[in-house]
Parts: sequence; C-alpha cells; structure tokens
Amino acid sequence: MRFDEAYSGNVFIKSHPDFAESEAVIYGMPMDWTVSYRPGSRFGPTRIREVSIGLEEYSPYLDRELGEVKYFDAGDIPLPFGNAQRSLDMIEDFVDKILAADKFPLGIGGEHLVSWPVIKAVYKKYPDLAVIHMDAHTDLREQYEGEPLSHATPIRKVAELVGPTNVFSFGIRSGTKEEFQWAKDNGMYIAKFEVLEPLKEVLPKLAGRPVYVTIDIDVLDPACAPGTGTVDAGGITSKELLAAIHEIAKSNVRVVGADLVEVAPIYDHSEQTANTASKLIREMILGWVQKRNA
Amino acid sequence: MRFDEAYSGNVFIKSHPDFAESEAVIYGMPMDWTVSYRPGSRFGPTRIREVSIGLEEYSPYLDRELGEVKYFDAGDIPLPFGNAQRSLDMIEDFVDKILAADKFPLGIGGEHLVSWPVIKAVYKKYPDLAVIHMDAHTDLREQYEGEPLSHATPIRKVAELVGPTNVFSFGIRSGTKEEFQWAKDNGMYIAKFEVLEPLKEVLPKLAGRPVYVTIDIDVLDPACAPGTGTVDAGGITSKELLAAIHEIAKSNVRVVGADLVEVAPIYDHSEQTANTASKLIREMILGWVQKRNA
Amino acid sequence: MRFDEAYSGNVFIKSHPDFAESEAVIYGMPMDWTVSYRPGSRFGPTRIREVSIGLEEYSPYLDRELGEVKYFDAGDIPLPFGNAQRSLDMIEDFVDKILAADKFPLGIGGEHLVSWPVIKAVYKKYPDLAVIHMDAHTDLREQYEGEPLSHATPIRKVAELVGPTNVFSFGIRSGTKEEFQWAKDNGMYIAKFEVLEPLKEVLPKLAGRPVYVTIDIDVLDPACAPGTGTVDAGGITSKELLAAIHEIAKSNVRVVGADLVEVAPIYDHSEQTANTASKLIREMILGWVQKRNA
Amino acid sequence: MRFDEAYSGNVFIKSHPDFAESEAVIYGMPMDWTVSYRPGSRFGPTRIREVSIGLEEYSPYLDRELGEVKYFDAGDIPLPFGNAQRSLDMIEDFVDKILAADKFPLGIGGEHLVSWPVIKAVYKKYPDLAVIHMDAHTDLREQYEGEPLSHATPIRKVAELVGPTNVFSFGIRSGTKEEFQWAKDNGMYIAKFEVLEPLKEVLPKLAGRPVYVTIDIDVLDPACAPGTGTVDAGGITSKELLAAIHEIAKSNVRVVGADLVEVAPIYDHSEQTANTASKLIREMILGWVQKRNA
Amino acid sequence: MRFDEAYSGNVFIKSHPDFAESEAVIYGMPMDWTVSYRPGSRFGPTRIREVSIGLEEYSPYLDRELGEVKYFDAGDIPLPFGNAQRSLDMIEDFVDKILAADKFPLGIGGEHLVSWPVIKAVYKKYPDLAVIHMDAHTDLREQYEGEPLSHATPIRKVAELVGPTNVFSFGIRSGTKEEFQWAKDNGMYIAKFEVLEPLKEVLPKLAGRPVYVTIDIDVLDPACAPGTGTVDAGGITSKELLAAIHEIAKSNVRVVGADLVEVAPIYDHSEQTANTASKLIREMILGWVQKRNA
Amino acid sequence: MRFDEAYSGNVFIKSHPDFAESEAVIYGMPMDWTVSYRPGSRFGPTRIREVSIGLEEYSPYLDRELGEVKYFDAGDIPLPFGNAQRSLDMIEDFVDKILAADKFPLGIGGEHLVSWPVIKAVYKKYPDLAVIHMDAHTDLREQYEGEPLSHATPIRKVAELVGPTNVFSFGIRSGTKEEFQWAKDNGMYIAKFEVLEPLKEVLPKLAGRPVYVTIDIDVLDPACAPGTGTVDAGGITSKELLAAIHEIAKSNVRVVGADLVEVAPIYDHSEQTANTASKLIREMILGWVQKRNA
Repeated sequence: MRFDEAYSGNVFIKSHPDFAESEAVIYGMPMDWTVSYRPGSRFGPTRIREVSIGLEEYSPYLDRELGEVKYFDAGDIPLPFGNAQRSLDMIEDFVDKILAADKFPLGIGGEHLVSWPVIKAVYKKYPDLAVIHMDAHTDLREQYEGEPLSHATPIRKVAELVGPTNVFSFGIRSGTKEEFQWAKDNGMYIAKFEVLEPLKEVLPKLAGRPVYVTIDIDVLDPACAPGTGTVDAGGITSKELLAAIHEIAKSNVRVVGADLVEVAPIYDHSEQTANTASKLIREMILGWVQKRNA
Repeated sequence: MRFDEAYSGNVFIKSHPDFAESEAVIYGMPMDWTVSYRPGSRFGPTRIREVSIGLEEYSPYLDRELGEVKYFDAGDIPLPFGNAQRSLDMIEDFVDKILAADKFPLGIGGEHLVSWPVIKAVYKKYPDLAVIHMDAHTDLREQYEGEPLSHATPIRKVAELVGPTNVFSFGIRSGTKEEFQWAKDNGMYIAKFEVLEPLKEVLPKLAGRPVYVTIDIDVLDPACAPGTGTVDAGGITSKELLAAIHEIAKSNVRVVGADLVEVAPIYDHSEQTANTASKLIREMILGWVQKRNA
Repeated sequence: MRFDEAYSGNVFIKSHPDFAESEAVIYGMPMDWTVSYRPGSRFGPTRIREVSIGLEEYSPYLDRELGEVKYFDAGDIPLPFGNAQRSLDMIEDFVDKILAADKFPLGIGGEHLVSWPVIKAVYKKYPDLAVIHMDAHTDLREQYEGEPLSHATPIRKVAELVGPTNVFSFGIRSGTKEEFQWAKDNGMYIAKFEVLEPLKEVLPKLAGRPVYVTIDIDVLDPACAPGTGTVDAGGITSKELLAAIHEIAKSNVRVVGADLVEVAPIYDHSEQTANTASKLIREMILGWVQKRNA
Repeated sequence: MRFDEAYSGNVFIKSHPDFAESEAVIYGMPMDWTVSYRPGSRFGPTRIREVSIGLEEYSPYLDRELGEVKYFDAGDIPLPFGNAQRSLDMIEDFVDKILAADKFPLGIGGEHLVSWPVIKAVYKKYPDLAVIHMDAHTDLREQYEGEPLSHATPIRKVAELVGPTNVFSFGIRSGTKEEFQWAKDNGMYIAKFEVLEPLKEVLPKLAGRPVYVTIDIDVLDPACAPGTGTVDAGGITSKELLAAIHEIAKSNVRVVGADLVEVAPIYDHSEQTANTASKLIREMILGWVQKRNA
Repeated sequence: MRFDEAYSGNVFIKSHPDFAESEAVIYGMPMDWTVSYRPGSRFGPTRIREVSIGLEEYSPYLDRELGEVKYFDAGDIPLPFGNAQRSLDMIEDFVDKILAADKFPLGIGGEHLVSWPVIKAVYKKYPDLAVIHMDAHTDLREQYEGEPLSHATPIRKVAELVGPTNVFSFGIRSGTKEEFQWAKDNGMYIAKFEVLEPLKEVLPKLAGRPVYVTIDIDVLDPACAPGTGTVDAGGITSKELLAAIHEIAKSNVRVVGADLVEVAPIYDHSEQTANTASKLIREMILGWVQKRNA
Repeated sequence: MRFDEAYSGNVFIKSHPDFAESEAVIYGMPMDWTVSYRPGSRFGPTRIREVSIGLEEYSPYLDRELGEVKYFDAGDIPLPFGNAQRSLDMIEDFVDKILAADKFPLGIGGEHLVSWPVIKAVYKKYPDLAVIHMDAHTDLREQYEGEPLSHATPIRKVAELVGPTNVFSFGIRSGTKEEFQWAKDNGMYIAKFEVLEPLKEVLPKLAGRPVYVTIDIDVLDPACAPGTGTVDAGGITSKELLAAIHEIAKSNVRVVGADLVEVAPIYDHSEQTANTASKLIREMILGWVQKRNA
C-alpha cells in the first residue's frame, strides 16, 4: 500500500497496470436491462474480479502462469441504466478502440445481448470471422415480446451479420421450434446438448480462421452454475467446459476475442458460479490470448 | 376445486371474483427496469399475493374484516420488459379504466416510477388531488444518469403535475442537496426522518380533499424491510407505519387511490418484507377504500 | 387481462383452461406431514408452477411443443393439514374422478406418500399395472417410527397392492438392510445407483403394459436437486434423468399416469430444483401423455 | 475431554450434569406437525442450545450468573413424527415427572400446541394457576381446518381448563374476530399490540399466585425474530421483551414453569432468532426459577 | 474509463485520489483471526466500500455533502493471516504514518482487536486522549481462553494504556461479572444498554479534549445488524446510533480518529449491515473529520 | 430419556458410548485460523454430526451396517482459538492416545492443516506409512504469506516427514508451478484432475502397507460440495468419491487412520455438503476401520 497513489482495488488478479504494454484487455459490461426472467448479471463483472483473488496464478491444465500474458483490466464500461441502445453503442465504441490498439478483447457480462456490439466491432476488423457460441439457449429470436434488443436475440443478429454458416452453437438445449428451424433452414450449425465432442469435429474446419468465442455461463448445468438468470437442467459440467476451452487452445484456429456472460451473483449463494467463472477466464487468458496472431 | 373452470391461483386473500361488484381493484405493476442499484421488485406483486394466504382476515386495529370490503384482484399488468415508456403508458391506461368504472385503484409495485402514471390518471379525475408520499428517498430528481424515466424521478414528475404544494413527503432520509433545495424553493412539504407525528399535523389541513397515498416500503428501516432494492438505515418501524395508515383511516381526507411499491423478494430471505407488505395492504383495504366517497 | 373474469394466476405454463377438452390433468398434492427429517415439500407444487413461466414451450429433445398436448391444471387438492389418512382419501378420490373422465393424472408432490393413493386409484382401473419408481430411497418400510402412513413406506404399500414383481425401482442408494432383503425375497426389482442402463433392460419386458411412473426428485444427486428434504450423495445427473424420461417415451409401454414428488422450495435457494422439476414435467407431458392409449 | 465417558454435546450452556441436584429442567419439544403455514420449529431446541455457547454466563440486567442456578438439560423428548395426540401425551407425562420431582419445568418448542399438555400438568399441581401468554396471535380457536389439535388452539384449551379469567395475553396483534369476541365474552384479558405497560398493570393483581409463562417468539417484531413460522409485522422489540421478563422477575408472582416456543431455524438465516432465544432463556433462568417457592 | 491508467475499483464513494491533499484516510483492517465464535469480519472493509456506491453524497441530517471533506481511501492493510501480533504491529505502524502526516485516521474492521494498535498510535500523539466506545460487549477481559490478544480484550488494553477514567463505554449489554466489576473498581464509565441519553451527559465533560471513537457494529440490535459475528438481542436501533454520531458532531469534543468494526458480510444476507455501515461512515466523515482541529 | 444422566446430544449416529470397547474414535478438530480465503470449517464437525441423524445405518454399497463396527465419538478437541501451534500440539497428543489404545483415528476437520499433526502421530506408530491424499489443491507450499503453519502447507510437511515417494495425491487441480515442480523433482505422485482410475493403479503397489487417507472435501466439484472455503471448478462427483472409498475398501492396503476436512457449514445453504460428508464417513467406517489389522 502506498500513500502516493490511489488504491487499485477490484481488478482481475495479476492484471497488468499499463494498457499500452498489454496484449489483452478485460472489461466488464454491467448490463441486464433486457432480461425478462431474473435480472442481476450487471453485478457479475465485479464479483468475478473480487473472487479472482482466490485463484492460483498457475494452470496445471496448460502448464502456464498468468505472468506469461499481459492483460489490462479496464474496469466496467459505465453503461446507462435501462437504455439498451445507448449501452450497445458504448460497448461497440469501446471494443473498436481496443481493436484499434491491436489488443485482444476479453469481455465479462452482463446479459448476453452485450456480445452483439462486441462481435459487430470484431467483424469490422475480421471480415472472415467465425463465431463459436456455447450456451443453453439458441438466442436466435428476431425479437422478444416485441423488442428486437433482447437477451434472446443476440445470436440471431450475429448470424445475420456474419452469415449463419459462420456461427457454430454448442450445448444448446432450449429455444423455440422456430429458432431451431431458422438455424436449419439457414445452414447454421447447432450441436444440441453436447459441447466437447461436436467441438472436436468443428474445430479442424475452422483452422486458420479468426474466431470469436462467446460463452454463456448457463451452458453449464445448474448444478455447476446456479448463479445465473435462466437455469436450465441437463447441461454440461465445468470439467467439460474447461476441456472445451483447452480443446480450442490446442486447435489451429486464431482466437481474436472472447467473452463470458450471464453470471448473476444474487443467485450464487456460495459464490460457486463466480469462482468458476474466474477460473474459466484464467484458462481463456492462458490458452487463447496469444493465439490471435498465430 | 371444480373441474369446470380454471384454477384461480395466486390472488390476494379474500379478493372478490367479480370485477363489476367490487369497490376496489388490486393490480400488480411488475416493472423494475429503471432501477440502478438492485433490481428485483418486478416479482413483488406475486410474492405479496402468495404470502397473503397467511393473513388473518380480521384487523384487531380497525375491528373490521376483509369480507366487509369487496376488492377484485386483476393480476399483474403484462408490462413489456425493458421498455419504460410503453410500460408507463399501459399503467396509465389501465388505471384510467379502473377509475372510469368508479373503483379504488390499489396498486402493487414494482419500482416507484410506476406511481407516476397512476397519479397522472388519478389527477385527471381529481384535479384538486393531494399526494401523501412515504419513502426513504426524495425521488425528486429531474433525471437520473441522463434518464428522465427513472425510479429516482417519480415524485418530481408528480410535483410538477399536481403542483409542489400539493405533495407531502414523510420519512425522507436520503436525497441530493438539490432535491431538498428544490422542494424548499417550491413549497413542497418534506418531513425528514419521521412519519407519524408530522402526518398528524398535515392531515387536518387536507380534510375533505381527495388524496392519493404512495408508500415505498423502504420508508421502513432495513430491519423491518430487508427485501427491497435500496435499504437505508434510520427508518421507521412497521408499528409506526401501521399507525400512520390508521391515522389516515380515521382522518377526514378522502383517499381515492393508493399504492405500495419496491418489495423485492430476492433480498427477502425469510419473506419478512412480503408478509409485512401483505399486512399493510390489508389495513389499507380495510381503512381506506370506503373513505373515497366519504 | 380482462375485467369480466378472475385472474387465473399460478398455473403450469400453457395449461388448457377447459377440463373437459384436456387429455391430462396436472394437480398438486401439498402434503408433507409425515416427513421426519426436513418438511417443506407442501410448497413444491406452487413453486414449480411459478417458475414454469421461464420454460420454453418447445422440447428440442422430443421435437414437440406444449401446444400439441392439452392439459388442465386443477390446482392443489386442499388437503387437511396434519391429517394423513384424510389427505390420502381425498387424493384417491380426486384421481378416481380424473380416471373416470379418462384423463392422464399428472401429480406434483408433496411428500412421496401421496403416490400411494394415486397408484391405488390407477390400479383399480388398470389391474395389470406395473410401477416404475425412480428414487434415492427404497421407501419399502412397513412402518416408520411406529407409523404405517409415512414417507418411508409408500412403495411397500404399492408393492403389496400390485405385487412386488410388478414394481421396478431405479437409482436406489439408501434404505435399511431389511428393505433390500424384502425386495429380494419377494422378487421386486431394484436397480441400485443407476437408472438409465437398467431401465433400457427393463422396458422391453413391460412392452404393451400399462405403467405408472413415480419420480422422487431426490433420485438426482444433491448437486442437481438441493431443494428436497432428504439429500443423499451419489445420485444421477439431471441429464441422465431427462434421458430416462425420453427412454420411456420411445419405449412400447403405455404410460397411464405419473407423478413428481418431494421438491421443497425452502432448501432451494436459487430455485434450481423447481426449475429442473418444471422442465421434467414438460418432458413428461410431451413424451408420455399421449402414450396411454398407445 | 475424557475417554471414560460419552461426549456430552449439545446442552444449554452451563447446564448441570445431575438431575437430582437441579432446581430446573430444560427440555425440548421438537414438534411442528400441526403447523399450517411454515413448519420447521421442530429444530428450534437443538439450534437454541447450539448457539447458547456464545452467551455470557452473566446477566448485567439482573446482576446474576448462571452458576447461581442449577438446571439440568434433559434433551429433547423423542416425540413421534406426525402423531399429535401421542406427542401431547408424552409431553404431559414428562412434565408430570419433573413436577413430581419438584423442579421448575422450562420447555423449548416446537410449535405452540406443546404448551397445552405442559400447562395441563402444571395445573394439576397448582389449581390456582394463572397463565401469562405473550404472542402475536390469540391462539384461541376451537379448531383449525377441522382439527382441534392445532397450533392455533392451545390458549383456548388452556383458557377452558384454568378458566378464561385466569389467562392474560399480551402483545396480541392477530386473530379472528370470533377469537377476540370469545375472550371478551368470557372475561379473558387481552392486551393488544403492547406487552410491557399492560404487564405492569396486571402483575400486582397476581401477587402471590402461581403463574406459568408461555412466550411465543413471534410476539417479537419480524425484524427481531425472522426465524419463526408466522411472522407478523408490528411487534415489540427484543429490548421490550427482555424488560417484560425482568418485570416479572421483580414482581411478587410465583413463577412455577415457563416455555419459549416457535423458533424455526430454517428461516433464521443469520441465526439471529436462535441467539435471541438463548439470551431470553438465560434471563428466564436467572430471573424466574428461584421465584417458584417465593 | 481511461486506457492510460489502472482501473481504480473498490474505494469508498467520493474518496479523493490524492493522499497529500486529503484531510482523512480511510483504511481497512481485514483481520478476524482471534474471533472465537463466528469469524468473517475480514471481508467487512471490502463489502462496505462496494455498497457505498449506493449512498447519496448528501446528508440531510448534517446538511453537508461528501465533496466538502477530502478523504483518501488507502485500501486494506495487507495483514498476515493468522498472525495477530504482526498484524497489530503493522496497524500501529500504518496509523503512525497517517498521524505523522496530520490526517484523521478512519479505520474499518475487521475484529475489534484492531482498535487497540490504532488507539496506541493515537495516544502517542494525544496524551490527554479520551476514548468513546460503543459496543454490545465490555471487551474488558485480560485474556480470552488464555490468549491476551483477543477480540474480547481490546478495551481492557486501551483502559490500561490511557487510564480507565478516560474510557467511556455505551450500549454495553454483555460481559462477565468480573469485567463489569473491574470497570467499577477502576472508575471506568459504562452506560449499560443505552447510548444516546448517557452520551448527552458525558460529552460536555469532555469538551475541548481529543477523543477517539470506536464503534462496534454490534452495539446495534441484531434486527439492525445481523451481519456481525456476535449478535446480542436488546440493542439500539440504527436511528439511535445515527443520532449518537450527530450528537458528537455538534458537541465540543475534538474527534481525532475513529473506527467502525465487526461487520461480517457472510451473515449479512441482504447486505443490510454493510449498507448501514457505509451510511454511518458517511456521517462520521461529514460530522467528525473537520472537528479534529476545532 | 433418563433423568439420572446428562443428555448425550450431538454425536455421530450409532456411535458407541464406551471408549474402551470401540475399534475407532471419531473426533473433531474445529480449527480454521490459518485459512486465508473463507474460514468457517471450525463448525464442520458439529454440523456433520448433526445431519448424521438423517443417515441410514445400512450401506447398500458395502452391504454392511453401522452396528457391525464399534466407534466412539469423542467430541471436538477444545482447540485454543487463533493459536495454531498449540492447536497442532493438542491434536498430536490426542491422536497419540488413540493410537496407544490401539484404535483407528477418524478425524473431522477443520482446515486441512489439522491432518499434519495427526499424520505425525500415526507415522510414529507406523514408520512404513504411506499417505493417500484426495484434494483439489497440492497443499505443498513451504509457507504461505510467510507463515509455515498454513492450510496451504500440510502435505509438504507430511511429504518431508514420511518421504515424498510415500505420498500419493489424487484429484489435484490447483497449486503453484513450484509445488507441482517440487513434487516432480522429489518423486511424489500426483494424479491431476482424476481420482478413481489412477487410484486403481496405485493401490496394488501399496498392498500390505499401512496407509493413512486424508480427504479434503474440495476434491469434489463445487456442484457437489459448495460448503467449503475454497471451491474450485472441474472436480469429481460424489459418486466418484464414493467409488474411490470403496476401491480402497476392497484393496489390500491396511488403512490405519483417516480424516475428512474442510466442510464449512456457513457456505452450505441447503446442508448438502454436510450431508454428503456424513455419508462419506459412514462408508469410511464400514469400509476401512476393520482393515487396519488386515
């Protein structure tokens, strides 16, 4: 503790103090205002950072340490409460700047709609982008209760932007009949219920391509992630999700950005979900950041 | 249980099945999307109804029974998630109809902003309306984080509509300097910290006038109402709030509508706040509904 | 929302408003008074209905939608608190009526003892009935603490009624030595620890027979179902239980009734168990109801 | 710790190991099976003993220490689950023995119905008994949902046994109109809402008489006692309840037995209620036990 | 958010970024290792800062705003887990430096033992120091379970250092007989049970003297502060504690330092206690900091 | 219940009342004072015993009943709060006595450091001891934050005492790079991530040797054991841990002592972890105690 500078409190463990020198930028997107069922993910980024102090810096999975990657924690984007459109614009703007500085954007949600402006920004830089999407839900609606800006629509928007054949969803176990039909009709890939095995089949086909990975924490079974807004039984375990992250790390794709969304501390009575999220982020940093220019 | 009709599940205890015959209408306003700090009040109306089954029908305070007043429970208004303006319009519309049918509107929030369209509707019918406001917070901002439709602004809007000298706030212990100053400059009455004693002084001055009463559950001390979004130490007890309701009941004002807002079940671990709210509503029904034409 | 009829609140999502036109009847059995360790399942039916609003209507497992089956939600049977015998009589009576109207009874507990009168009623209609029982516990005691009407005895009663060789238990991992011995001595089938694989072996032997399925939520591991009275480590995952439901759906048995029991909201801090239960019920509706006359 | 005897685990702090030498006997009545709304008080006695280790042995209110009174902790009476009548018989039997040995019975509930057999036993020994009753609820029903053995009926039974004019209720804020009327018609004393001031008026009239005191923890406001089955807003504070205990201690009545009932740990998330209950019991021991032969 | 500097996360709201320009220094003392009953206060400072974002900057009690006082948030002192003596040395050292820089030390605990080294440091600078102590507990033991460095001993150590007649305790309702006797024998002031009225009597006698104020959050009733390790029924309300802070603010004493200790987030299920603590700290800042040179 | 002896409250179910006649001794080690992140395991032994009343006495896995093994529950060792070294000495002393009486020590933690003095004692009796260690964490540090007595160091101390090649760790998924390197450099066995399969390979190599087994409950995935201080995603299920216990039971090793540590009730909101722990202990008793002289 020093008297001559402000206390740098709640940052992700081992984050680098200097933006310019960093390879990646962690940023929070504390938005949950389009969430229909149980809001609360706006507090996700803060809690994930807080519990990250309990993390070891070393990954026995990847045999690497956090010190081997430089990442700056930019804090939370100060999104305007209740205003979805303005929030999305601010996020896109923010990620534009990260990408302009040639850094890896690593976002923490917030509701899943925040991934939409991020991917918009990433797509501008990487027009041949593919998107890997892990989630319990299709998120392919055109609108939800009349509202096109909804936590139920981001992947639809993404698919329309980058082309449905460039989007690959895994672990999906919930959606409307129309959503599944739309994916089928448009050549979008959906692996129902499972993640790891289908991922092993898809990754070789994406070799060399820039890939953005968006993970909704509810791809996990509620047993592994009770702290989220929309729990849905029948999901994968955290062991499987870790394996999926490592599978991507050792593949030949170029990961150019990623996010982890929908952790909601208010339902996370033992902080189990936030702890799991912080470990997932450690593995994403160690496994993915330096693959972007691979 | 009968086979020939659908199950009428979650209604406030002893509510009357027939709208036309009822003197009052209970309705939920499940909106919390402008809430900045801790949302969750959208589930308030449901939980308050649910726990109302534990209520006695008799009030030993007023020596009356729920059977002596006919009130219809209209359920929750199906507000569009995340869309504040449309939600407010629907509420105003709904209350217009209740008033057109000459019934007492008894609303359950939801965040405090829902009181704004209700009072707009009531004011159209009663142009000499006075508003009694019990709350921890002034709610007198012009906008909050740039947004005029916010849980921090409803009383300002009300004051500008009905005139600041017709608004009487009680129990206030939180607000900006500017809010308190605005009230002072515009002749609006604010009783800081206390409710019962200042209320006894104000009520005689309102004798004979139509009065709308809006109660934010956080006027109670956090000890008495942990289940709300913005707890603020130093509040009144539920015993004092009950006494305030009874003080109004025996006064000479004409209560023409009322609401109770901001119960958030997610923070209400022992359902204490929802139980208290259901008791307060019982006393409001027994003490106020039949005073409207007094 | 309409003014001319009472609000139909807490029903299972998409339930049909008309009893006569429905193929199945959902009904709650809010009883937990014989439970020794941790009561609370009496509130199970209410909470399961409440969270069902978060369900998608479409099952990607079965490729069917709730709209394809008509089911009426009859609410909770108004069981007399603390009186086990009278409660059981009321349940039997109620199910007799459902069966007389030729509908599929789909019950929600409440403690497991409620399955006993249901199966009594079903057995009267289907004398060649077989019973599939998924549970952590044998529930085969003759009495518990001197009391024959106990949550520890229902399957014993059922086995004595329909014949032990017509009862098939799966997932069992708890019971007295005497219970396991009794099953063995009387030719009753018990699959210890596992559900899916042994079920695949048993189902072909029951082809064409009327089958009643009773699921105690505690067949799931406590990780997947913390919200129940008697958690017991070493259970199956919700993914496996979903697969078991689907296995029955595609078998050649005639499912003539079913129940899901022992969800206790008071221990279900993130509502994970109630959400899982509501999803299981959706799959039971879509997979089983129309098989009864197969 | 000694090897030559079993571990004496969960007893109330400083309880005396020898029954014969003790002046008072603490005993648990772990029954909650007639409770309609939220059961769970069966675990009250265990948790109250557990948290009693956090108590100081000295009372600065009474300037006495627990060592000055010898009390034996007899543990919980092993009541048969779900069987109300048999449970009540066992309690009466148990208290008969305590009284035969000339000791002060200090019971911990469990639901309030347990006080009924206790007072029956005490009344056999003290035919001029008066009963002081502190509670939120009248508990004066003849039956509840058709059942005469209910948590809503004990004081009615007591009043019919010892005579309504010998029963004095304090703090009452809930009941049916009929209950209040019955009390009025039969000369039974009810102090609505308040405890301390009316108690000061009543005590002198009972000077020299044997008095049994039964305290339902819900006489406290939910803020002070969230851990109970039926919270009811508008209650007294724990400071006032402590003062009431001390008022009795310094009066001229002969306290010949007492109980504290309805603590339900499952709703007591911070163990606040159990801690308060253990302090109340300390004050009852120090203030009342040695007054019985006064 | 800026890219050119690290994110300044979790600081008390409106704290000043520059140490040198500040009048006061907020610092956390995250220690709870001598706590016998229920630890957890080590997380108090972090959570209090976190919830401070919900605070208004204006105090309607004092009619002042946080912007009128400059205070620097130095973060938490990095105390070595489990090592009490080393921790206390580090705290004393830290406060020495704050005082050397002529700033007001405003500490957040942590267990109450942390106040001991703080007061040691303050006493070195102000040899005529008086100590105002608000607490449920005497904290006057010589040792606890053989250990002199204990959460039960700090005020004894303080009294022996500054002289018992210079220590004034308020709100005390728990302690051993020996502790109360020691205070009496040594002329130390103890106001049992109450705070505000005795404080009004004591303050004039301390006029002009330097005073350190240490507040244990458990001076509040458990209803107002469930989130602490040792709840004890019969405490004061947060309204009274606020009034006590304001009473000191308008007195003629010179407040030269203060702390608030024993908030334990783990028992604070609705964050009620942390919110209350953050409000108390706001009032201490606004009311006391600029009185030190008065 | 008998009047002539003290109530023997909270003991592990079916424990034998006589030390001399018992084959094993259960004892609690309620220490958590070196825990850095989230303490609370000191209450583990008490809660595990409490919930053990819900256990069946029969194991369908091992086809044995608790009555077949005599074990004495010695209660908790009264460890001095905050004093690590003295606590460890008391534990060693205590286990020395158990071993001198030729009984099987079965300890319940408390933090993992408690295993260190236990193994010291066991090693004195069995110099050819091997240690099986199941945990999420290596626990191989030399010191933690400068402190050699830490919950992060016990296995390092054990390995240095019994020799690194005699220590076998399973399920490890967290540690520093240096810890893993130290194990590798010194020939210590570490099975990363998995337990059952590597255990099957190791056990034959230990045939005939005396083995001590220490299980940190956090070897389980957080889904299965949320109630512990340091949750870490990616762990095994309770089904796998049960299988590991049974694998040891049917192997040819001589189990001469065991412990289960780190259950922390405060994070165990549905008591799921304590229930699981009590079942694991039942299986350890039935499977291991009588193998010590095999």
